[in-house]
Amino acid sequence: MSETIEFAEFKRVEMKVGKVLEVVRHPGADKLYIVQIDVGGERPLQTVTSLVPYYSEEELMGSEVVVLTNLKPTKMRGERSECMLLCAETPDESQSVLLQPRVPMAPGTPIV
Amino acid sequence: MSETIEFAEFKRVEMKVGKVLEVVRHPGADKLYIVQIDVGGERPLQTVTSLVPYYSEEELMGSEVVVLTNLKPTKMRGERSECMLLCAETPDESQSVLLQPRVPMAPGTPIV
Repeated sequence: MSETIEFAEFKRVEMKVGKVLEVVRHPGADKLYIVQIDVGGERPLQTVTSLVPYYSEEELMGSEVVVLTNLKPTKMRGERSECMLLCAETPDESQSVLLQPRVPMAPGTPIV
Repeated sequence: MSETIEFAEFKRVEMKVGKVLEVVRHPGADKLYIVQIDVGGERPLQTVTSLVPYYSEEELMGSEVVVLTNLKPTKMRGERSECMLLCAETPDESQSVLLQPRVPMAPGTPIV
């Protein structure tokens, strides 16, 4: 078990419902997609995500997802990644499954 | 938008797939359930959650949920709460919807 955290620490992590708007393969990395996600803001957020072994582009397009939205932006293989799609992933990485709300919710809806 | 956080900070937040084992109404609070959740450990974790306006006991029983598992335990109206069920919740609190993996996953599967 991890060290316990205070509620205030958890509240610093901003998560929202998102909707996948666009998916393209990363031109320089076999396992990576570059994905545009509507998270209810003025512009979509871009993520670089290693979901190629688990989902096709068609399966991702239009999906409801759960997104970590306030991660410090970074670059993955040269492409900007400014958020993260949350998945339930087995320790051996044989399965990685996206999270979703039980019923559809508007992009930008906060996770609490 | 919240302040950005480092990946290391996000990794301190432990979230897992859970399965609801038991649901009872809190004897002293109209909106609270006391819920036992299998999160893959030796014993279930208990949470006190204000889901009464959104879900019946029957709807919660057996549900797959997403659980914050390393929150410092607290008491809510006298009952121990040692984890938290994550929901997508509208700012006006008219809707609060549990998160789940897109397909069933074993309790205890980490969220990454």
